[in-house]
Amino acid sequence: MGMVGGSLEAFIGGVHRRAAIMDGEIELVCGAFSSDPAKSKETGKALYLPENRIYDNYEEMILKEKELPEGERMDFVSIVTPNHVHHAPTKLALENGFHVVCDKPITLNTQEAEEIVAIAEKSGLVFCLTHNYTGYPMVKEAREMIASGAIGEIRKVIVEYPQGWLSAYVEVAGNKQAAWRTDPKRSGAAGGLGDIGTHAENLAEYITGLKITELCADLTIFVKGRLLDDDANILLRFNNGAKGILQNSQIANGEENDLNIRVYGETGGLQWKQMEPNTLIHKTNEGVRIIRTGVGNLSKAAQVHTRIPAGHPEGYFEAFANLYRNFAIHVRAYWEGTTPDPVYDFPTAKDGLRGMKFIDTVIASNNSETKWTAF
Amino acid sequence: MGMVGGSLEAFIGGVHRRAAIMDGEIELVCGAFSSDPAKSKETGKALYLPENRIYDNYEEMILKEKELPEGERMDFVSIVTPNHVHHAPTKLALENGFHVVCDKPITLNTQEAEEIVAIAEKSGLVFCLTHNYTGYPMVKEAREMIASGAIGEIRKVIVEYPQGWLSAYVEVAGNKQAAWRTDPKRSGAAGGLGDIGTHAENLAEYITGLKITELCADLTIFVKGRLLDDDANILLRFNNGAKGILQNSQIANGEENDLNIRVYGETGGLQWKQMEPNTLIHKTNEGVRIIRTGVGNLSKAAQVHTRIPAGHPEGYFEAFANLYRNFAIHVRAYWEGTTPDPVYDFPTAKDGLRGMKFIDTVIASNNSETKWTAF
Amino acid sequence: MGMVGGSLEAFIGGVHRRAAIMDGEIELVCGAFSSDPAKSKETGKALYLPENRIYDNYEEMILKEKELPEGERMDFVSIVTPNHVHHAPTKLALENGFHVVCDKPITLNTQEAEEIVAIAEKSGLVFCLTHNYTGYPMVKEAREMIASGAIGEIRKVIVEYPQGWLSAYVEVAGNKQAAWRTDPKRSGAAGGLGDIGTHAENLAEYITGLKITELCADLTIFVKGRLLDDDANILLRFNNGAKGILQNSQIANGEENDLNIRVYGETGGLQWKQMEPNTLIHKTNEGVRIIRTGVGNLSKAAQVHTRIPAGHPEGYFEAFANLYRNFAIHVRAYWEGTTPDPVYDFPTAKDGLRGMKFIDTVIASNNSETKWTAF
Amino acid sequence: MGMVGGSLEAFIGGVHRRAAIMDGEIELVCGAFSSDPAKSKETGKALYLPENRIYDNYEEMILKEKELPEGERMDFVSIVTPNHVHHAPTKLALENGFHVVCDKPITLNTQEAEEIVAIAEKSGLVFCLTHNYTGYPMVKEAREMIASGAIGEIRKVIVEYPQGWLSAYVEVAGNKQAAWRTDPKRSGAAGGLGDIGTHAENLAEYITGLKITELCADLTIFVKGRLLDDDANILLRFNNGAKGILQNSQIANGEENDLNIRVYGETGGLQWKQMEPNTLIHKTNEGVRIIRTGVGNLSKAAQVHTRIPAGHPEGYFEAFANLYRNFAIHVRAYWEGTTPDPVYDFPTAKDGLRGMKFIDTVIASNNSETKWTAF
Repeated sequence: MGMVGGSLEAFIGGVHRRAAIMDGEIELVCGAFSSDPAKSKETGKALYLPENRIYDNYEEMILKEKELPEGERMDFVSIVTPNHVHHAPTKLALENGFHVVCDKPITLNTQEAEEIVAIAEKSGLVFCLTHNYTGYPMVKEAREMIASGAIGEIRKVIVEYPQGWLSAYVEVAGNKQAAWRTDPKRSGAAGGLGDIGTHAENLAEYITGLKITELCADLTIFVKGRLLDDDANILLRFNNGAKGILQNSQIANGEENDLNIRVYGETGGLQWKQMEPNTLIHKTNEGVRIIRTGVGNLSKAAQVHTRIPAGHPEGYFEAFANLYRNFAIHVRAYWEGTTPDPVYDFPTAKDGLRGMKFIDTVIASNNSETKWTAF
Repeated sequence: MGMVGGSLEAFIGGVHRRAAIMDGEIELVCGAFSSDPAKSKETGKALYLPENRIYDNYEEMILKEKELPEGERMDFVSIVTPNHVHHAPTKLALENGFHVVCDKPITLNTQEAEEIVAIAEKSGLVFCLTHNYTGYPMVKEAREMIASGAIGEIRKVIVEYPQGWLSAYVEVAGNKQAAWRTDPKRSGAAGGLGDIGTHAENLAEYITGLKITELCADLTIFVKGRLLDDDANILLRFNNGAKGILQNSQIANGEENDLNIRVYGETGGLQWKQMEPNTLIHKTNEGVRIIRTGVGNLSKAAQVHTRIPAGHPEGYFEAFANLYRNFAIHVRAYWEGTTPDPVYDFPTAKDGLRGMKFIDTVIASNNSETKWTAF
Repeated sequence: MGMVGGSLEAFIGGVHRRAAIMDGEIELVCGAFSSDPAKSKETGKALYLPENRIYDNYEEMILKEKELPEGERMDFVSIVTPNHVHHAPTKLALENGFHVVCDKPITLNTQEAEEIVAIAEKSGLVFCLTHNYTGYPMVKEAREMIASGAIGEIRKVIVEYPQGWLSAYVEVAGNKQAAWRTDPKRSGAAGGLGDIGTHAENLAEYITGLKITELCADLTIFVKGRLLDDDANILLRFNNGAKGILQNSQIANGEENDLNIRVYGETGGLQWKQMEPNTLIHKTNEGVRIIRTGVGNLSKAAQVHTRIPAGHPEGYFEAFANLYRNFAIHVRAYWEGTTPDPVYDFPTAKDGLRGMKFIDTVIASNNSETKWTAF
Repeated sequence: MGMVGGSLEAFIGGVHRRAAIMDGEIELVCGAFSSDPAKSKETGKALYLPENRIYDNYEEMILKEKELPEGERMDFVSIVTPNHVHHAPTKLALENGFHVVCDKPITLNTQEAEEIVAIAEKSGLVFCLTHNYTGYPMVKEAREMIASGAIGEIRKVIVEYPQGWLSAYVEVAGNKQAAWRTDPKRSGAAGGLGDIGTHAENLAEYITGLKITELCADLTIFVKGRLLDDDANILLRFNNGAKGILQNSQIANGEENDLNIRVYGETGGLQWKQMEPNTLIHKTNEGVRIIRTGVGNLSKAAQVHTRIPAGHPEGYFEAFANLYRNFAIHVRAYWEGTTPDPVYDFPTAKDGLRGMKFIDTVIASNNSETKWTAF
């Protein structure tokens, strides 16, 4: 694996590195860790990379690695830069024959995303977008249960992603994570909506197997001076007639990272919370069952994404690592010309494109005086 | 207390009777418990009332009791009939000098509600509408905290009232509670919205001290054949610029009676759930405090609505009884010509009228293609 | 009902009054509310009793009430005094033909308790000891489940009753509740063990249907100057070979009133907590079920001790009222010469005697250097 | 790192491997993964090791690696075999200059443990025993809070470790994990007590900073045919006068891996549960605070054992990895001749010896008719 972005001070780079190596299938062999060559050098050294595999920029990395002999050169690129530097390295990597893992969102806008989808499809290479929350075993279990009819036809979906860390104007107080996320040039047209709202959208469609077809959005910038939305309340309508709500916020003071979803069907309901990820609550009017990672008869999809017995909590890194592990299975299958078992899934470029369109649609709805905007 | 409605098979009548007598201040002395005189008789006997105080209908009760000597005759009327029989007995009672406790909603429609507000105001008598959920001590505490600025200016309010008991078409299967609630003649223009959605609206405005000024609603009838809404998703905007969501459902399969609210301000958030009513969660970006009935320095408002030390759970009946107790304090003050401490509050006819207008506004919004409808 | 004790400043008197009247079957008609006649008068007036039914002491009450005509005189006595004033009024009431409800513990010591058991049996009158925690519907459900083999033969029982309110030396700081509970003259040979430990013992035997046969105790007085135990750790052995732990504390700083029990059998476990009384957790190695008051197929025993639909929390007063309601059913059956359905149960004098012997055994064990003391 | 034990079918080997590599500081370079050379070979290949670094047995590994040039040879040995194969490879590794990480318990018995302590001390090498539960950030925070007096002098400690997976006689049904744990030859004199009870003992002493000085134990074998204890109930006394309870079980049907501890001091209490490891509850009689990984002002000890912001759950692997990371810091300090900051701590051979003595003491107490056995 060669990494683009992820210098020592970044947040998500370290997550990707830990996730990638967790199962012993992937090794970091090179990187262009920063647009600043000195920082890239410093990071690469701290990661024990040989100097000749620490590059000044991603173009150099991709082109030089390509010339290395097979077996020695990197097998894929992991892109963990801010949003505005997703498209170009992804494109260059795919065009030079490298598989790609890319942090979400896939690109800065829909047009770029459509281009990546086209290139990825044409290349036949493996592309994974890290909507990491779909990697949790209990998310897999929920999806399998719904697909098998465990709660009947779905009627109502409530998905939420509240955080509180942007309650104050911290982007001007030296918080680097806040600074790029609230900067339209680096983050795109959306703030919290793009940062976390798309995770909620992706999770809702992933778990239910439904598609959002219409929505009605109310975006807000609560913190004075901020340039992008820090709160979103959205009514949803799904392709089967189900209704729903999606709300995300980064000014929900006191909330950590509380992505959660409730799905109600004709005969039962399911509830999952990212902060207690090993618990899935199955409610019916006759009673409540607590489904737990590793306990009882779970689906194969849940089982193959679990590493240790029940009661030994697996968390964020492990769910993230499930994406990398599945990606590795697909890369190996690519080499071997085989087709992996569908349980080893991960979000693709098309999911990324759908996320970009979701952002567009929500912004259009927010700017409209008509109630419903088609998605 | 004389009761209108509340025969043995009804649900809410027994709740009112237990709530009324809990603190030893109120006694049931007469009743017209059903539109069927035989049922009224049967109920009155089961409640150990003397035969001459069991009436065939509320008109008879109000007019005959009025002729009894002071000290013997009932002091007030408690109205616990289905919605379409709220207006007439309330009006008759007020016009004949009796204070009134009335189950919510105040009437069948806004016009009736306006009339009751006018009569109540003109009479000077005490009128209490049993939006009972505002009677919980931790709801009082939340209201006091917000009023005192404990979480700063409010930005976001999420109030929910999911139930699952109408997931199937039970109104045709002999469920009497379901039958009248889903019948427009007895319930009014709204189904779940009027039954439980107005509780959510009332709670949100009560706790925050804010007013909803605009809303955007999506009502649904999920169960085929049903005549009134069984699900509502509503975007809210408040008079201080806060945004919000109100959702209620009676098809949220597996949910019992999960009224809950989250309020986020500039400096903190509050969370309360009716099913764990003695816990109020106060979150900030620096940490979380669990506030509990009876523990630590609580507001006077919380304290005077608590009967026993911490850890001895008080519940639904006790919160309901707080309304009756406060009503009794106001009736006594009426007699004595004094003004009670404002902590002994309860919902009034104006709150009832606001609930009716809320129903009207939501239905108008639901029928509109424009995003926002003023409230 | 005539009450002995329970002046305005007392805690448990108000609980008994609210519990007694809750279901409309019992009315307070007279009382001797304090050993101080002035206080008794003041309390009786505040409770709207006629002056001639407010007595200076319990002897006067019992003897004068006895002379009143049937139908007018009280039907039973409720004794809510400190422990040292349980035996005498109970005895006098039973000997004069009055049924008795008595707060726990039954008496100050085992000898007195044996006498009460003998008198109660001889009289044939109804005697109820208010081990109120057995009145919760989910406690009934747990007992029924275990009796029906739902978790198999029981192997392990852990019962706990931690409180924190006596963490400091509050009995010398004007806390009246603390003062009598830590005074051997008024409380007996045990402090927290008698006050709350016996509730734990009673609950464990009630739910499991087992008997403790041996125990090994470590009692402590943590607060300097205190005269009675404020903490107890006890190993238990049961008559079927099960093992267990009972711990109670009044110096568990931060705990409110957290009586709780876990029972593990060959095929499953049950967990119940008094502070969330409407939830019973049923765990097995295959999964977890949340059993809730009012939801699904519950035992008749659970159903008849529930007043309202699921999700409307019933609490401490309601559980307490279940004892009074069942007591009233037995009194009525006494009059009618019938036998009530066994689901309408309540703790008896024999349970009270067992509690006194438990105290004796724990104290003996605490003073012994031998590991096991027979019970 | 060279690994002893941990073939593909083992449980704890994979945990150690993931934990070791998580932070990018440690790499697996060789191994003797099984006493069966074929299995060792198969495992090493699956882990992408070169054939010449996959050894037939640990003796070969230690002696051959020793001959490799510095920089190429392994830096330390990780021992993840069943208990009876801890002593010999540890001894051989230390005697040949290799640092050691060893899974708990340190050895099969106290005599062996004392020998290891002596060898380790004499060698000056770094030895880490993986009592992994002390690696959680909230355990560190609890320890720091208690050390700084946040809850006052400690009075009561309750530590529990219930599991349910040995409720049936699974060791004869092909469960390999069960088979060696219940076999005295491979597991030692204790069953569940050694497997999980020592974790509870270690956690209690680690968090409180106290020492257990006396105990009174009741061990049971509930499953017929089983050779070692599957349940333990133990009264504790600590060196400062505090009292306590330790209970562990592997027949607590329905429990997963619920290690938990409650500590009560003069002015507050702390509660932590391994299955919700990022939450530490701080209770006082004035209120409850929820302390969360990554939120607010935490101790340095908590902070340096946390990798990602609040709300991204870190779990079992991450806590385990904290031990390896701290071990690596100490190995590096050994090379550099420096002394690490004490926050980078881990359990040592002395902790291992104390665990072995704890087992001896509990067994002696269990066999004694005297109440207290000194520890």
